[in-house]
Amino acid sequence: MKKRTHTCGELRASDTGTVVTLNGWVDRIRDLGGIKFVQVRDRYGFTQVVFDPQDNELYNMALKLGNEFCISVTGSVRKRPDDAINLRLPTGEIEIVASEMGILSDAEVPPIYINIDEESAEEMHLRYRYLDLRRPKMQRNILTRHRFVQAVREYLNNNGFVDVETPILGKSTPEGARDFLVPSRLKAGKFYALPQSPQIFKQLLMVAGFDRYYQIAKCFRDEDFRADRQPEFTQIDLEMSFADEEDVFSMTEGLMKYAFEKAASADISTPFRRFTYQEVVEFYGSDKPDTRYGMKIHDITSIFEKTAFKVISDSIDKGEKVKGFIVENKADRFSRKKLDEYTAFAKESGLGGLMWLKVEGDGLKSSILKHCPEELSSLVSLFAANENDLILFSLGEGLPLSKALGQMRNKIIKEEEFSVEGFEFLWVTDFPMFSYNEEEQRIEAEHHPFTMPDLEDLEKYGESDPLKVRSKAYDLVLNGYEIASGSVRIHRRDIQSRVFDLIGLSREEATEKFGYLLEAFKYGPPPHAGIAPGLDRIIAIIVGAQSIREVIAFPKVASGADLMTSAPSEVSQKQLDLLKLQLKDTEN
Amino acid sequence: MKKRTHTCGELRASDTGTVVTLNGWVDRIRDLGGIKFVQVRDRYGFTQVVFDPQDNELYNMALKLGNEFCISVTGSVRKRPDDAINLRLPTGEIEIVASEMGILSDAEVPPIYINIDEESAEEMHLRYRYLDLRRPKMQRNILTRHRFVQAVREYLNNNGFVDVETPILGKSTPEGARDFLVPSRLKAGKFYALPQSPQIFKQLLMVAGFDRYYQIAKCFRDEDFRADRQPEFTQIDLEMSFADEEDVFSMTEGLMKYAFEKAASADISTPFRRFTYQEVVEFYGSDKPDTRYGMKIHDITSIFEKTAFKVISDSIDKGEKVKGFIVENKADRFSRKKLDEYTAFAKESGLGGLMWLKVEGDGLKSSILKHCPEELSSLVSLFAANENDLILFSLGEGLPLSKALGQMRNKIIKEEEFSVEGFEFLWVTDFPMFSYNEEEQRIEAEHHPFTMPDLEDLEKYGESDPLKVRSKAYDLVLNGYEIASGSVRIHRRDIQSRVFDLIGLSREEATEKFGYLLEAFKYGPPPHAGIAPGLDRIIAIIVGAQSIREVIAFPKVASGADLMTSAPSEVSQKQLDLLKLQLKDTEN
Repeated sequence: MKKRTHTCGELRASDTGTVVTLNGWVDRIRDLGGIKFVQVRDRYGFTQVVFDPQDNELYNMALKLGNEFCISVTGSVRKRPDDAINLRLPTGEIEIVASEMGILSDAEVPPIYINIDEESAEEMHLRYRYLDLRRPKMQRNILTRHRFVQAVREYLNNNGFVDVETPILGKSTPEGARDFLVPSRLKAGKFYALPQSPQIFKQLLMVAGFDRYYQIAKCFRDEDFRADRQPEFTQIDLEMSFADEEDVFSMTEGLMKYAFEKAASADISTPFRRFTYQEVVEFYGSDKPDTRYGMKIHDITSIFEKTAFKVISDSIDKGEKVKGFIVENKADRFSRKKLDEYTAFAKESGLGGLMWLKVEGDGLKSSILKHCPEELSSLVSLFAANENDLILFSLGEGLPLSKALGQMRNKIIKEEEFSVEGFEFLWVTDFPMFSYNEEEQRIEAEHHPFTMPDLEDLEKYGESDPLKVRSKAYDLVLNGYEIASGSVRIHRRDIQSRVFDLIGLSREEATEKFGYLLEAFKYGPPPHAGIAPGLDRIIAIIVGAQSIREVIAFPKVASGADLMTSAPSEVSQKQLDLLKLQLKDTEN
Repeated sequence: MKKRTHTCGELRASDTGTVVTLNGWVDRIRDLGGIKFVQVRDRYGFTQVVFDPQDNELYNMALKLGNEFCISVTGSVRKRPDDAINLRLPTGEIEIVASEMGILSDAEVPPIYINIDEESAEEMHLRYRYLDLRRPKMQRNILTRHRFVQAVREYLNNNGFVDVETPILGKSTPEGARDFLVPSRLKAGKFYALPQSPQIFKQLLMVAGFDRYYQIAKCFRDEDFRADRQPEFTQIDLEMSFADEEDVFSMTEGLMKYAFEKAASADISTPFRRFTYQEVVEFYGSDKPDTRYGMKIHDITSIFEKTAFKVISDSIDKGEKVKGFIVENKADRFSRKKLDEYTAFAKESGLGGLMWLKVEGDGLKSSILKHCPEELSSLVSLFAANENDLILFSLGEGLPLSKALGQMRNKIIKEEEFSVEGFEFLWVTDFPMFSYNEEEQRIEAEHHPFTMPDLEDLEKYGESDPLKVRSKAYDLVLNGYEIASGSVRIHRRDIQSRVFDLIGLSREEATEKFGYLLEAFKYGPPPHAGIAPGLDRIIAIIVGAQSIREVIAFPKVASGADLMTSAPSEVSQKQLDLLKLQLKDTEN
């Protein structure tokens, strides 16, 4: 093999006359007037190579080439004629006149397209992932991920964080989602568990005095995979001692600003907006709204306080609210038929119905115009609505109404294919500490049981009305996705025990499961707080991928299978015997 | 909590007069003339804080302090009197006169020493790892690891390597050591395997055109843990396309030079010395010699070619060799009794005996002086031996003799506690491609079956005498440890199939296990080569740790148990039921 002198992305007009060698793949072959033009591709770009029939032997070799052959080609750099310059390629001003070639390996016809951006069935892409990953789009995704991760490390290293590896072979814990188990051979009948997160280990690293910890950590959850979950996923896990929410907020904001600049050339403005959980649900009907679309939900009850329209006044008399949001400059896209469909959806979401108001050139249009024209005029003023704006509103009890309108808002954004650019971050704070698990009929930790509760709330409501207790947990939301979740942690044994009590974990269970953490808290634990941004989702948002599968080199499908390697697979009886395990008859 | 203004490692005399707040742990408390001197510790260092009895309330609070309490303390920086300056501490010129303190958490008496470097039973250190990790030595170990890893990333990023994550939930492969298995819940009866290395994935990333890949990768091997193995360990996994041994050698040398400079302030000279496997065994009787000690084995047969000493001449007549090595300037440490012990060891190692020659002030001493005084004089010249040197030598067939002497050499280095400083790297090349597994009575791949054989050897001996085939595998040895292993890989289907044939892997098995790799090789795979330095061992060598457990934050013991968390542990019947598994009666 003759080794490359240059990559396929670097030759320019100024290299004219140089003899170079490229190593790469045949991306496409064109035949123009008997001359073969071969575009050679590598990770760094594309370069055109010319085979002239006058060089008989070499030309005959070129005739054998097919797409995706791997070759080494040597030749002289030549400036292309002006009418042949390809402005879309950085190397488009030149071509190589081949003088020597080695075929490093040949290629059958690939089962998926590599050189055109046409998607075949995803199954084929995953089965032939090594070919799928040759596509420039996939290369960009993985390289963006690489650059993002390196930027994250740079930022955290520069801020005194220590990268510490925590075990993958851990202990089974009852954190809600299911653990993947790993049977132990040396201790038959016992199992390791793969970590759902390094939560307890990072807290112990704070107890150990490492002050600031991070890890790009693999985490595992054996859930029934929803649309876009993976059994193994990656989080940017970090924790800080002697820190509170404000420290975590400003560190995370700095981190995102730095990494988005480096990996996506995006200018992120900080600090991020903040909403309490209460506020964000009220204003957007969701705890992870995409605020780029506006469409904030307003309480417009006051406008209808004295309305004669009985449907509304009855509702207000019952103590219900009127709330709505504006869709700007798109009223013309909402036909009567479409509005009827959204009204039907509103009813499915538990609302009595949906009212609408359009501002058109010749005045207002509304389903209820004749019932309350004055109120509708006030509504136009309140929203500062202009021509072609649409206002949607409905009636109901405060938060449920907001939530239903939030669903409506999300449905409209998705179905109308509203398109916006950019990255909009926001913090959501003051989550409830506990929630009620209907299925198991018990109180559980909303975030996780190591989250510090609001101590005043805990005093006031802890035992009487725990669902009212707020926590020092926070989420970071980006473009409608929860991309990070974190909290100030409990570092006091008394509070930790009280939280375990409240979620119904007995002293025995608590000791069995988390005894070492409670033990550690006996020896001067520092106050600490942390967060864990999810890497896969962030990269998917940056590159505009529909699924996180597009930003993971070797992902799994919903059944948990790797279509390329056929994992998981059957294992030998000998392997099971070593583990002292047997399969249960799966017929039962 | 009052947040720190400074860390415990940064205040200097120039800060005198500043009011500062520190957050940290009580490292020790001294009482001098009624004044309390509290040394406060954090990751960054130590600072002395003074509590004066005149401030009654604060002094009373200080009386409550114990070692390892976590505190926040505020006060004014004061220069210490000249006779109280502590030159061993960077902060030793100053102290803080406390004016305010908060106890962030108290501490029971720790079960292991933290502030003095006395080791208790390792079991206690592992059980209370979060306290063990507070010890400055352990903090240094983990921080050195952090710095080394970051330097590795910097170097590889700067050299165009892409950090790509490969799956932890993989497919079971028969690479010799045992896989850890992970039962699948969604596909009952099937299992994932944790990767022994990302070998196949990194080769597929080369097929995918990523050109240069790296990953700080967790790997897993379910072996009966020998003295210093861990079930999960970390390697610096890297792979290069269009590359051969020379590319991997120079890249690895550059990497080590850079990372040792950054993490250990060590000046590593490159290129590293190279030995073939044949040479290194001949010269040091080992494929991973610690060459810092010299003691190279010489073939000294020629000196004895005409000897009258029958023991030696008979042996030479049979075609055997005489070989030996010199121990410089330490003959006085080898008493007659000790030499007898080493002779006994030589016999255990399969040698007929051990001959020795000491150069003393008054002439030569040797067990065989009277048999061949002239030859011994020649020996002194050949080794350029000086007073107080010892030469040890023996008889036997070529390589076995070297190997037995190599064992002797290692035993002497260890038992005599010879001590040398520094880092000595060397490459070992031209390993045999195959070896014979006595237990299973079959030929197996010495390195792994994806290693490129020497193609000339393969042609010549492939089917007739496969054990003669050399491979393009190489090891990197540092101070007597194999710290990295790598090879040029097979990228041709015909060679890969032939190697599978030679190790007795049927087409069906090969397809079932590695079908996707063979399939990938149909589509223009590039030539590629790689290496995988073992991170844990390298860090242990740098910090001078006896065991890799000292450079892993949360290691396991030989049984595979984590003494802190008690993993592995029993799991519930419900968990097993979900996996359709049952435990076999372990009585059988």
